[in-house]
Amino acid sequence: MRELASRVSQPRLAALLEAMARFGAREDGGVNRQALTEAELEARRFLASRAASLGCKVALDPAGNMFMRRAGRREGPAVATGSHIDTQPAGGKLDGVYGVCAGLEVIAALNDANVATAHPVEVVVWSNEEGCRFAPGSLGSQAYVHPKELSRLLESKDSLGTRYGDCVAALRKKVPAEERPLGAPMRAFLELHIEQGPVLEGARLPIGIVTGAQGVRWFRVRAEGEAAHAGTTPLAYRRDALRALSGLMEQLYALAERAPELRMTVGKIDVEPASINTVPAAASITVDVRHAEPARLDAAEALISGYCAAPRHGCTVAFERLMAMETTWFNEKVKASLREAAKVLDLPSMDLISGAFHDAVHLARHCPTGMLFVPSERGVSHNPTEHTDPALLAGGARVLALAVAQQAQEN
Amino acid sequence: MRELASRVSQPRLAALLEAMARFGAREDGGVNRQALTEAELEARRFLASRAASLGCKVALDPAGNMFMRRAGRREGPAVATGSHIDTQPAGGKLDGVYGVCAGLEVIAALNDANVATAHPVEVVVWSNEEGCRFAPGSLGSQAYVHPKELSRLLESKDSLGTRYGDCVAALRKKVPAEERPLGAPMRAFLELHIEQGPVLEGARLPIGIVTGAQGVRWFRVRAEGEAAHAGTTPLAYRRDALRALSGLMEQLYALAERAPELRMTVGKIDVEPASINTVPAAASITVDVRHAEPARLDAAEALISGYCAAPRHGCTVAFERLMAMETTWFNEKVKASLREAAKVLDLPSMDLISGAFHDAVHLARHCPTGMLFVPSERGVSHNPTEHTDPALLAGGARVLALAVAQQAQEN
Repeated sequence: MRELASRVSQPRLAALLEAMARFGAREDGGVNRQALTEAELEARRFLASRAASLGCKVALDPAGNMFMRRAGRREGPAVATGSHIDTQPAGGKLDGVYGVCAGLEVIAALNDANVATAHPVEVVVWSNEEGCRFAPGSLGSQAYVHPKELSRLLESKDSLGTRYGDCVAALRKKVPAEERPLGAPMRAFLELHIEQGPVLEGARLPIGIVTGAQGVRWFRVRAEGEAAHAGTTPLAYRRDALRALSGLMEQLYALAERAPELRMTVGKIDVEPASINTVPAAASITVDVRHAEPARLDAAEALISGYCAAPRHGCTVAFERLMAMETTWFNEKVKASLREAAKVLDLPSMDLISGAFHDAVHLARHCPTGMLFVPSERGVSHNPTEHTDPALLAGGARVLALAVAQQAQEN
Repeated sequence: MRELASRVSQPRLAALLEAMARFGAREDGGVNRQALTEAELEARRFLASRAASLGCKVALDPAGNMFMRRAGRREGPAVATGSHIDTQPAGGKLDGVYGVCAGLEVIAALNDANVATAHPVEVVVWSNEEGCRFAPGSLGSQAYVHPKELSRLLESKDSLGTRYGDCVAALRKKVPAEERPLGAPMRAFLELHIEQGPVLEGARLPIGIVTGAQGVRWFRVRAEGEAAHAGTTPLAYRRDALRALSGLMEQLYALAERAPELRMTVGKIDVEPASINTVPAAASITVDVRHAEPARLDAAEALISGYCAAPRHGCTVAFERLMAMETTWFNEKVKASLREAAKVLDLPSMDLISGAFHDAVHLARHCPTGMLFVPSERGVSHNPTEHTDPALLAGGARVLALAVAQQAQEN
């Protein structure tokens, strides 16, 4: 196993990441490679050609997901790894694409070490993960896991009216590939990703074993009062909608303080009529809460609904649940193999839970799934300055190589 | 004096207000008669013709203010009353125009009672008080009191690029009138206006003697932190700009609670990037504070500057004073004559301070000035539903008639 790990090449991985960063390069050093744009199609073609040169067969499914397969001694389901290569409009060089490049580096290392695995090993590019061009995010992995959703998802349109399905057709013209059905079985799926948060850096640890992904609920709270003149209206006569929400915000910030493992964010706030000398007639906030335990999400929701049960400063306050996503727990065997691989390589690791969505969250409904994080400098992501030390990137690829190889040798 | 008051006709005043409401009438019953629009020019022409039929001479000054003068036994400065006739886009039938119509009703009553005053009595239409078409508000009365500002003010443009000065030229073509210089002396100025607030209605009093206008300060407070992923960023790593301001908002609301005579309004709030799942990188609020005593405004400003002196939740917080206007105190003699007139008419009154700007605030820098309020139903103004009982409107006009007549008889 140490032999395989030593074949994972830090310079070769770094060079592939740099080569990929040229597709959609921004002047500020970042990357704008939104899903199925010309830049992303060129990047896919480049990857497919690289995979072919490593001896892989390339396939596309009807949702635009791309599979690069290294044959095993047997036919049948592969051990899959990978992530996505699309970015935010002002994205960096690592979010998503690192997991795909590391997957190809694992295949190169398997080749160099002359390892013949029992099962095929496959690197997947999941299509349209970011969701900034076509809604929803993780469109490709969702369609793969829920094939019945495909026809609806192909109709998704970008802001210019371009249809997702037409972009998939363009992809098929651009990239010579076999056909692959949605939902084909996988032995396992392992996703390697940058953390996009500060926990590993803060703990000075090179590897994070992702135990799962937090449950998420989104709310909108809206207060309605009455507009009034800022100069002529005494306090007792006001029905100030912003004031009606400020108490809730204080309670939510206090809740986050008491329960630091709860992630609570008030990300949007709006008032009407938004005039410097008018008492706000209406105000609304959004609340994003995340926690692994449903009971903690219930408690946050109860705080909000309790606050909304009574008028506040003469205003009605109403809340709406915009979205709820349950906690995902990754597969125990996959997590154990990742932990074991880190241990073999003397790379200290910690368990942590993901606060963000990933393709693996959907794959966890399909096959034994696990995730691996490497640190993100200052926790910055979705930003041109996104960065991780190349040695840490190589370390993550080595852990991935060992865990993939182990899964691919099993009966 | 009671004879003069009995000549003030409630039906005639109500009919004139209804006639004026047809210029710029909205389908919802409100009025959209913005400054120097075609509707407002037609309304001016109608008023000038009404004034002529009452024996008045009509004059215009270079800022578009209109003067309707009833001669006295002597030449020279007049006792002036009036207000404005321009409205907000969704205005009512009373704000401003009530003071002008009541002024003409005073002249009609003086005629009917055969009163010959020592000094002329003049009804003024101050131009562009609302400020929603041309900035600044109270343009006409400001130019009158500060003639040196005229050339700058004539260059003010509306949102379509139309120049204020060109609209004044159109007014002069529309309304046959004499020329009047800016800044000509006045013996006194008395403005009658609806309260635009709930105090008189709450106190069940028909008359408010306005002691002055509160000082006003406007601030903008801006916090800058760092955008971060709502899911991946633990509390300790956040620099949440909205959270940095929520403590200040609580302190400001608490201050308003402790000092109910302080008017404190947070009217605007903005966050960036305003995304449901992103910790705000920047947040800003506006603060409008009003009080008669400069020391109380200083205290509110000190609270804000003190809050901004230290970083809050890892964010810098900075404040900016956008505007400061000192408290205005009206003339003691004018106030006394208004109080006396109300007493003679058995109309109970209270003293109150205006929270809003009015033309009289500027005239107070020019001549002995006073203001009189009648109640506003539910305190609603700048709204098509703006309403005051016609009997209350007539009561205000009677008090005005007596006070004007008294000032116009003095030596």
